[in-house]
Amino acid sequence: MSLFEEKAVNTTPISALGEFALIDHLTKGIKIKNKSTVKGVGDDAAVIDIGDKYQLISTDLLVEGVHFDLAYTPLKHLGYKAVAVNVSDICAMNGEAKQITVGLALSNRFSVEALEELYKGMNLACKHYGVDLVGGDTTTSTSGLMISVTALGEVEKDKITYRSGAKVNDLIVATGDLGAAYLGLQLLKREKEIYIANPKMQPDLGGNDYVLQRQLKPEARIDIVKKLKELKIIPTSMIDISDGLSSEALHLSKSSAIGLQIYEDKIPLDITAINLGEELNLNPVLCALNGGEDYELLLTINQKDYEKLKADVDFTIIGHISDKSEGNNFIAKDGSSHPLTAQGWDATKIG
Amino acid sequence: MSLFEEKAVNTTPISALGEFALIDHLTKGIKIKNKSTVKGVGDDAAVIDIGDKYQLISTDLLVEGVHFDLAYTPLKHLGYKAVAVNVSDICAMNGEAKQITVGLALSNRFSVEALEELYKGMNLACKHYGVDLVGGDTTTSTSGLMISVTALGEVEKDKITYRSGAKVNDLIVATGDLGAAYLGLQLLKREKEIYIANPKMQPDLGGNDYVLQRQLKPEARIDIVKKLKELKIIPTSMIDISDGLSSEALHLSKSSAIGLQIYEDKIPLDITAINLGEELNLNPVLCALNGGEDYELLLTINQKDYEKLKADVDFTIIGHISDKSEGNNFIAKDGSSHPLTAQGWDATKIG
Repeated sequence: MSLFEEKAVNTTPISALGEFALIDHLTKGIKIKNKSTVKGVGDDAAVIDIGDKYQLISTDLLVEGVHFDLAYTPLKHLGYKAVAVNVSDICAMNGEAKQITVGLALSNRFSVEALEELYKGMNLACKHYGVDLVGGDTTTSTSGLMISVTALGEVEKDKITYRSGAKVNDLIVATGDLGAAYLGLQLLKREKEIYIANPKMQPDLGGNDYVLQRQLKPEARIDIVKKLKELKIIPTSMIDISDGLSSEALHLSKSSAIGLQIYEDKIPLDITAINLGEELNLNPVLCALNGGEDYELLLTINQKDYEKLKADVDFTIIGHISDKSEGNNFIAKDGSSHPLTAQGWDATKIG
Repeated sequence: MSLFEEKAVNTTPISALGEFALIDHLTKGIKIKNKSTVKGVGDDAAVIDIGDKYQLISTDLLVEGVHFDLAYTPLKHLGYKAVAVNVSDICAMNGEAKQITVGLALSNRFSVEALEELYKGMNLACKHYGVDLVGGDTTTSTSGLMISVTALGEVEKDKITYRSGAKVNDLIVATGDLGAAYLGLQLLKREKEIYIANPKMQPDLGGNDYVLQRQLKPEARIDIVKKLKELKIIPTSMIDISDGLSSEALHLSKSSAIGLQIYEDKIPLDITAINLGEELNLNPVLCALNGGEDYELLLTINQKDYEKLKADVDFTIIGHISDKSEGNNFIAKDGSSHPLTAQGWDATKIG
């Protein structure tokens, strides 16, 4: 109902566009008015000129029932993760996070003690990442918990890394290992189903500490930003892997107007993720491509920088940048080439 | 249910503390780590040292069913208001808003066209206030609409105004008029009830354009910040009136460790608000004290600055600062003194 008469309007479901196209659509007409605004919508963080340095700003929402399930997410871990995922966006610009603000909307089923747990996790993450919690807003919601974190960071002007700088013949590098966070989530979902069917059953999570930690308490790679500085490498482009390798690679491709070739046999996987994938009948490579929430960094470097990082196990060369005309491809172990899509080259094989 | 065994914990309802005590409780142990962080939690905005100037940061959430009812809130107005209330926080620090980020969580009942309306309102406000929309996050929610806006602003270091600077004998000043936003809300609620009872009835909103605009499309007082600069007045303290005059005055009192005396016959009211109050059987002074959402500014000035602003109808002297021992009082027209409380001196008379 509406008190005000409205013109008849078309109703296009949001799902018809998808998140990224929707944001493009809504923000395409925005004109920048302040000269301090260097970069608005369209990268991991916005960029503001504050004199000697650039300031970075990123906002991320975590919504109950969409991004987390409190049946298997301890509130302390959730608080930690809410900070980590925003710090990760600052890392993706090659910057250091300095401050956060926190907006919380929560229904009256949450107690003061529950909020204390959430804050314990946020404070722990702030301490670990050297970030100050400087403000925010706490309010009632009609249902569930919603966490909105805005992170502020800094980067030296000559070290800022956008999504748009990848060049032909650059190497594509992934940090750490991929796919484990998604596998951890599938394990938690399986155990929740078993628990619902039979609450007396104890969850069988043994031996999967690593994948569970990757899902429940991911870390932002502030160590990688530090290491890149020590190695005197400025990536030509960078993005954090929140939505899966395929989706992030396609962002780099679009922003940099290049093509990219990624090789199946190069994708870094943890042995526990491989084993759990076997147990759950999930291909861990597809989990890496499409799963998301690993919060590793995907970067491109000039070939001249290869010697500097080749000995470091934290970095894996997974492919190279090619001309745009060659497209974005996933080269399987058998040598076959598959166009990379935001849902992976064969999403149906997952799950 | 929970997959993980938890220790038995006490469950204190959040309502036992209230919003402000809750935030104090959760943030009391926070230690500032970065030297660029000048002021964290506890004012209208956090303050960061960016060299020549201070940067201001404020986050506000607007939650459907709590802060707005889409039955009588056009989405375009809602978008405008979401920006305005955050710009207002920057004004309260005597600063100029420069950038915002927007987080949106929305259920699938919203169409692309509905989001376009929301963005139209946000873009209109950004244009009006000279602010750049630089980023954000858009995600699904399981129910309703939640808007999280973070505003960034700037202020010259010698002009920043905190809640904590009010001194004995300072004058208390309110801008514009108060109470109309609350009365507008009551009118909308009445018309909604009538509409529900009889959908064929047309809403009777005639002659109340001003109070409706105060509720649905409030303005941040960027003009006041500009005027203070022109008049060469730096307020000794300032806060924006989002929660009602009483509540905001008590924030100034607590932060500045002073007492304050506010006079009923000085409170600025608009004639249409007075008339509507009569119609709705609501005391407009109590609406000003306890209603909220006027987004005017409440400030204190040194007496030496009185001559500079006395001729300007935008400023009304409503009282003065006294020693803390005198307490915070509301002096009624009959000369009787009533302790000011966050719910006003007699909240039961409202509604």
